[in-house]
Amino acid sequence: MTNSQPWGGRFREGLAEVAFRFSASLDVDGRLFHEDIAGSIAHAQMLADCGIISAEDGAAITQGLIALRADIEAGRVEFPADAEDIHMAVEKLLIERIGPAGGRLHTARSRNDQVALDIRLYLRRRADEIVESIRQLQRALLRQAELHAETVMPGYTHLQRAQPVLLGHHLLAYLQMLERDRTRLLDCQRRADASPLGAAALAGTSFPIDRHAVAANLGFAGIVENSMDAVSARDHVMEFVAACSIGMCNLSRLAEEVILWATTEFRFIEIGDAFSTGSSIMPQKKNPDMAELVRGKTGQAYGALISLLTTMKGLPLSYNRDMQEDKRPMFQAADTWDDSLTIMAGMLDNSTFNASVMQAAAAGGFSTATEIADYLVRCGTPFRDAHGVAGAIVGYCVQRGLTLAELDLPTLQTFSPAFASDIFDYLDPNLAVQQRRSAGGASPQEVARQVAWWKGELGSQ
Amino acid sequence: MTNSQPWGGRFREGLAEVAFRFSASLDVDGRLFHEDIAGSIAHAQMLADCGIISAEDGAAITQGLIALRADIEAGRVEFPADAEDIHMAVEKLLIERIGPAGGRLHTARSRNDQVALDIRLYLRRRADEIVESIRQLQRALLRQAELHAETVMPGYTHLQRAQPVLLGHHLLAYLQMLERDRTRLLDCQRRADASPLGAAALAGTSFPIDRHAVAANLGFAGIVENSMDAVSARDHVMEFVAACSIGMCNLSRLAEEVILWATTEFRFIEIGDAFSTGSSIMPQKKNPDMAELVRGKTGQAYGALISLLTTMKGLPLSYNRDMQEDKRPMFQAADTWDDSLTIMAGMLDNSTFNASVMQAAAAGGFSTATEIADYLVRCGTPFRDAHGVAGAIVGYCVQRGLTLAELDLPTLQTFSPAFASDIFDYLDPNLAVQQRRSAGGASPQEVARQVAWWKGELGSQ
Amino acid sequence: MTNSQPWGGRFREGLAEVAFRFSASLDVDGRLFHEDIAGSIAHAQMLADCGIISAEDGAAITQGLIALRADIEAGRVEFPADAEDIHMAVEKLLIERIGPAGGRLHTARSRNDQVALDIRLYLRRRADEIVESIRQLQRALLRQAELHAETVMPGYTHLQRAQPVLLGHHLLAYLQMLERDRTRLLDCQRRADASPLGAAALAGTSFPIDRHAVAANLGFAGIVENSMDAVSARDHVMEFVAACSIGMCNLSRLAEEVILWATTEFRFIEIGDAFSTGSSIMPQKKNPDMAELVRGKTGQAYGALISLLTTMKGLPLSYNRDMQEDKRPMFQAADTWDDSLTIMAGMLDNSTFNASVMQAAAAGGFSTATEIADYLVRCGTPFRDAHGVAGAIVGYCVQRGLTLAELDLPTLQTFSPAFASDIFDYLDPNLAVQQRRSAGGASPQEVARQVAWWKGELGSQ
Amino acid sequence: MTNSQPWGGRFREGLAEVAFRFSASLDVDGRLFHEDIAGSIAHAQMLADCGIISAEDGAAITQGLIALRADIEAGRVEFPADAEDIHMAVEKLLIERIGPAGGRLHTARSRNDQVALDIRLYLRRRADEIVESIRQLQRALLRQAELHAETVMPGYTHLQRAQPVLLGHHLLAYLQMLERDRTRLLDCQRRADASPLGAAALAGTSFPIDRHAVAANLGFAGIVENSMDAVSARDHVMEFVAACSIGMCNLSRLAEEVILWATTEFRFIEIGDAFSTGSSIMPQKKNPDMAELVRGKTGQAYGALISLLTTMKGLPLSYNRDMQEDKRPMFQAADTWDDSLTIMAGMLDNSTFNASVMQAAAAGGFSTATEIADYLVRCGTPFRDAHGVAGAIVGYCVQRGLTLAELDLPTLQTFSPAFASDIFDYLDPNLAVQQRRSAGGASPQEVARQVAWWKGELGSQ
Repeated sequence: MTNSQPWGGRFREGLAEVAFRFSASLDVDGRLFHEDIAGSIAHAQMLADCGIISAEDGAAITQGLIALRADIEAGRVEFPADAEDIHMAVEKLLIERIGPAGGRLHTARSRNDQVALDIRLYLRRRADEIVESIRQLQRALLRQAELHAETVMPGYTHLQRAQPVLLGHHLLAYLQMLERDRTRLLDCQRRADASPLGAAALAGTSFPIDRHAVAANLGFAGIVENSMDAVSARDHVMEFVAACSIGMCNLSRLAEEVILWATTEFRFIEIGDAFSTGSSIMPQKKNPDMAELVRGKTGQAYGALISLLTTMKGLPLSYNRDMQEDKRPMFQAADTWDDSLTIMAGMLDNSTFNASVMQAAAAGGFSTATEIADYLVRCGTPFRDAHGVAGAIVGYCVQRGLTLAELDLPTLQTFSPAFASDIFDYLDPNLAVQQRRSAGGASPQEVARQVAWWKGELGSQ
Repeated sequence: MTNSQPWGGRFREGLAEVAFRFSASLDVDGRLFHEDIAGSIAHAQMLADCGIISAEDGAAITQGLIALRADIEAGRVEFPADAEDIHMAVEKLLIERIGPAGGRLHTARSRNDQVALDIRLYLRRRADEIVESIRQLQRALLRQAELHAETVMPGYTHLQRAQPVLLGHHLLAYLQMLERDRTRLLDCQRRADASPLGAAALAGTSFPIDRHAVAANLGFAGIVENSMDAVSARDHVMEFVAACSIGMCNLSRLAEEVILWATTEFRFIEIGDAFSTGSSIMPQKKNPDMAELVRGKTGQAYGALISLLTTMKGLPLSYNRDMQEDKRPMFQAADTWDDSLTIMAGMLDNSTFNASVMQAAAAGGFSTATEIADYLVRCGTPFRDAHGVAGAIVGYCVQRGLTLAELDLPTLQTFSPAFASDIFDYLDPNLAVQQRRSAGGASPQEVARQVAWWKGELGSQ
Repeated sequence: MTNSQPWGGRFREGLAEVAFRFSASLDVDGRLFHEDIAGSIAHAQMLADCGIISAEDGAAITQGLIALRADIEAGRVEFPADAEDIHMAVEKLLIERIGPAGGRLHTARSRNDQVALDIRLYLRRRADEIVESIRQLQRALLRQAELHAETVMPGYTHLQRAQPVLLGHHLLAYLQMLERDRTRLLDCQRRADASPLGAAALAGTSFPIDRHAVAANLGFAGIVENSMDAVSARDHVMEFVAACSIGMCNLSRLAEEVILWATTEFRFIEIGDAFSTGSSIMPQKKNPDMAELVRGKTGQAYGALISLLTTMKGLPLSYNRDMQEDKRPMFQAADTWDDSLTIMAGMLDNSTFNASVMQAAAAGGFSTATEIADYLVRCGTPFRDAHGVAGAIVGYCVQRGLTLAELDLPTLQTFSPAFASDIFDYLDPNLAVQQRRSAGGASPQEVARQVAWWKGELGSQ
Repeated sequence: MTNSQPWGGRFREGLAEVAFRFSASLDVDGRLFHEDIAGSIAHAQMLADCGIISAEDGAAITQGLIALRADIEAGRVEFPADAEDIHMAVEKLLIERIGPAGGRLHTARSRNDQVALDIRLYLRRRADEIVESIRQLQRALLRQAELHAETVMPGYTHLQRAQPVLLGHHLLAYLQMLERDRTRLLDCQRRADASPLGAAALAGTSFPIDRHAVAANLGFAGIVENSMDAVSARDHVMEFVAACSIGMCNLSRLAEEVILWATTEFRFIEIGDAFSTGSSIMPQKKNPDMAELVRGKTGQAYGALISLLTTMKGLPLSYNRDMQEDKRPMFQAADTWDDSLTIMAGMLDNSTFNASVMQAAAAGGFSTATEIADYLVRCGTPFRDAHGVAGAIVGYCVQRGLTLAELDLPTLQTFSPAFASDIFDYLDPNLAVQQRRSAGGASPQEVARQVAWWKGELGSQ
């Protein structure tokens, strides 16, 4: 039996050992010590400023917590084995160090508002860190996009070569996705930017506290306006984990492409040794493990999201112990996304694109067939008819093993009399891509414009 | 074999019937006809304005589409059985009506950017509708909160009576959650507010189109800046479905409470007959089916989210046919959330809270025990010690079947000499709740302040 | 207001129209009419046999239901608009046809045990159907495997060419996966093989019914032994949907491979026109849409699973209205898996593998490097050292653009003196694959053995 | 840069530190050391028996591994920091201890088949352990069910009191659910009962190994028959995690009921102090934390399932590094379910049901109204009419604040002349429950029968 729980007055028997182990969360929430101590310092200062505890007690608590934090950071502290969570661990250690004054820290506060605070402080910090990791990956993509602003490659639909594009254009698509991932996270951060402290267990407190002062001290934009909402809500955590999941989905697409491009069949990319691995039995292998892991870890983010959504489903107000299970998915999702962003940036910076292979691929596969159809439309052929002619020409080439550029004009004219000699300006991918001058299109001008815009946005690096 | 597919030039054999049925999506995407036609009208007008099609063709297309839309809305149109999706259905019907000019509508456009447009138009509209449904539920909650701004009830943690609160306070917590649900949806709507049209298949087009004009015509804030991003991205759909899921999670909590409150055991709420159902075999039952269905349908939203996240995981750029599976979860999530909001508002407006039962419940269950502890702390007792005394007093009462208010002062003083006669001002829930004056706390003043603020926000109704 | 609900005695007001629409499920569960009528016939016969209703009533009900079923199957019946579900629809239609005797059908039964029965009958039937679809796909795979029992191709790890295998061997791996999918479904079917009928609302009934007789009549192995379990449990539905999800996961892997193999880069497979589609703007495209849709629809199965798991989480016994939401995911998962199996079988039967391209691919990419290492080990070199030598040789070839087979013996001997002229028997993929004689390995003998076994298992077709 | 990876020949540069950390899995898979060593011992013995390595080497490896395992179990071993996973860690430690012979252990084996083996050994063991935990909970439930085989309580539908049942009957419903959970897990265990060892990287090996001997040595029923399937498949892990999720869903329902029953409003159960917790600020609280945590941890199981399903979706054969992410969800699901079963058993054994409170609840709420309807049916009234009469009587009582038992015969006869004095034998829940004599129904006889059957099944304890 374990007997040092923070309750006990009414209980005649301690918690069973198996129940203590089942319910303890220190192994998960221990990493919140920084947030927990920051919140406690702010709370203690407010208590002292409001005259709820003495200035001496306030100072002792603050000093004690600062020293404790330094010791934890330095690895000099072992958390007490009988503390069920980080809040109890910090309180126990504080009381050990400064005596009964430490017990006054819990005045006008409950673990319910305390953990709500720790979570919000954590989300705020991780959002900042992830935003910086997104920026890193955007910069890595931009460097390659600039380098390959004129590298022709096949654009794919259905993983079939469809139309020629520029590698820079393709990579810039990911910059846009990442930009939405970034603002989505910032929106989430902003929505969570309010202090729950002072809600106490659920109803607020009869002590004359100053919630706004604590909030300001901790850098929050304001307070959570309803005390029951303050301790009950976790929608900001769900939104955070959803943002991580969506971000991982976008990364998984880039990862998939890197894996495809690194095959012997595609040979579009050479990943540097520092970000590849080999095989224990097949020495010739150079595996895109980092990209595979990013793709695979997408599951961790999705799983974290479902874990949290499931746990919160149907919970009545206000705090329920189920909510202890909110932190593990939050950490998993944040770590997964942040690490994956970092690794993708490193991998891209260490990789080389094979421009000539891409160029050759664009020349194969009839990727300019659309140009034939559009050419005929401009000559007045109805779109669907033009499409039929282009399809017939491709079928002709497939049967004879020809490329479009190998056809001569008389042959083309057997399909439609509208063809003239300028059709050949459209059958070469290098020329064709220059026609895609619509805004945001695949033409070199548009890609250059995008690159320039992004350089302004991301600054010099 | 089905032979009317929009391709065909190269194909010597039609699509197998089983393959056509497997791949057709008209039964799902047919409901996008309004968006599809709106986008086509804007596209046709731009094509004519830019001289890509003739003014006559432009006018014929526009008039034909307007008439077609009216006929569909009036139920006078049956979609062609051989159309695989709403885009082909509309095009076929248009060509049937206006002849070959209809075929020119597809100039400088692909189904890839067309479906991307339809989805964004749909999200924009549904977001507006759901925002209005959120407002309706907020108003229904506010009406009850104002009515019960001074109704004392037990506040719960762990579903145990913890501290007295006011019903208005409890309901206002949900207004706050709904407000975040609302801004989250608006953030999503804003992030998706850009036109993908003109991206064509993936690379833009060589026709001299004006993407900005189409975007402005359709009321978008701008264009998607990268054509591959325009046809490949679905993160805005994921974000929308995630917002629906989080919103449903919050609703499921309110639903759970209504279900609990409607039990014979709680008896806090009487749901009106118009929003209850009975049993086919048990005539005495009055079941909270609407709340149960809202709680149960939470699964549909979560399922839709996972469905979409799974489908998009690891897809290379740009369009892949997998993405056809994006619409069903989008519709399911939007319908589920919107309908659930509406039904909860209707149910609340048709329900009566039993103030006296709630009041009586608050008086039982020792819900003012915290006041004892706080009282002692104010007398100088260290918090943890005060907590121990309060716990011992509760244990004493439990053993003797007493309430806290039934104790006399001498008995209290055997637990602590600090008690004086003013302790009795804290043991009655009606008095105790008035002490919760901290910002956002459970006191009548704070609840009145919140109600007033919300009335300003939501307007007179 | 809608007033024809099956309850009503105590209710003074009808259900609101919006509430009726929100709670009605006929659009979803209407497809259970066959199961519902079969269950009702068995129930009526038992009631008559036990003397609970008259033989005349029993016969009238039975005849009425048989006629009704025939009319529904023939499309001659429209379900009544005011029926909230299939159970009420059938009952209303029956009473319309045979008069008050129809009302006696509901004796000793509740919708709670009725819907539980319908679900079990449905699962039993769909499991049989899906098992047959699995067999179809296994047969299609086996046909190709037999055809390509000696076609050498690269075996991949990390999507890198690793070691030569036979296409037949690769395809047989999927037969094994499908076989587990099949037995998993049969296990589920067996576990659900018990009749819940007679549990009534939750507690059984005071009528002298014979549950075992009904069960036997319907072909069940027995009855659900506890009446509360009978109406409350849905774990068999979860297990069914989980089996569908796992099956779809396995199919998504095959789909991914088909998509890769159909690229211009791989060119391992040519999908027949009957199972390919084209592009509305790119006539040269021959898209593996069927495989993409199978991969994409995996999301539907996973979503259905999460939907159901979420809905059932935390529901107290016995029936709760949330459980109405069990059928949509069940149908979605069953349809998705069954249709996907069918389409994959059709697609494989309509596809041609390019043996020569695969063979050539196996010859590139150093896929026999492991043989070098194993050769050296057999000569006494420690494994890790042998591995180092093989890696060095590959590196040498990569730098010089050579294949392993192009090296001469003196060059090989500069890496290790252990090489003798028999090393060349291992460097050709066609020879190397013959060495993989371990049980279940890639050798032609082992593949032939597997093919023979499967032909016995699947029968002549 | 980290340079001790098991490949290296071709690589000129080591793995980046950040990449090493991202890809290392020792912190997760370290707990598989027991399985990894068991598999290696069996492999080494087979290699020696087949003459592939010398008997001396075989013995040295075996002895070295046995000693290493003992040291790890005793906590005397620190895994090398540069080992990326448990396989490399064990191999490094072995070579450190026994020298170059240790390197020969990897002959005819790859990490691909090695990790596949470890997973299957782990699943087999955990399935056994969880089956035993299920049995424990079944026994705990049976003890309470036997104790309360005649305790009348309200049976609920829609969480409304519906019909009287016996507590024993209610608890026995969970025994049935657990029994299906148990056989579902055993089916999964059986399906995974085959040895993948000898598949090597993917294609088998040219060494003359004996796969069947290793399989028999490790206690498997047989071998995985296709080497590519052996290293690629993870459907058995998905099935295991799905079984855990379904089991957790069932537990979450029992947990929800315990939470409800422990409220002041229900007061059906008193959870012992050893399995309850208190509040840091509300001393009167006795919280059902264990049940809340079980309910909340359901999210962990569901999340693990989605994590794994997502990771495996769309992976081509054979091994991909994504699959490294299979172990974390497997461990999470297994731990969650096993621990939850144990804690629920402990909690039930430490809890007391309040029979008198339950009995009183059954007497309220009109839970015998169905009996009135059935009584009338037996008198010849059509079911729907009888239902209407019963509903009208309940409505009459609700308006007057009466219970059904308080009505007199003349009053009843104003509703239907069919009532005679024997109707009073049906209005008392204690009598009514005795009428539920249908098989598996709520009558004491049926409950006694079920208890007896289960005592036989579960044995004396």
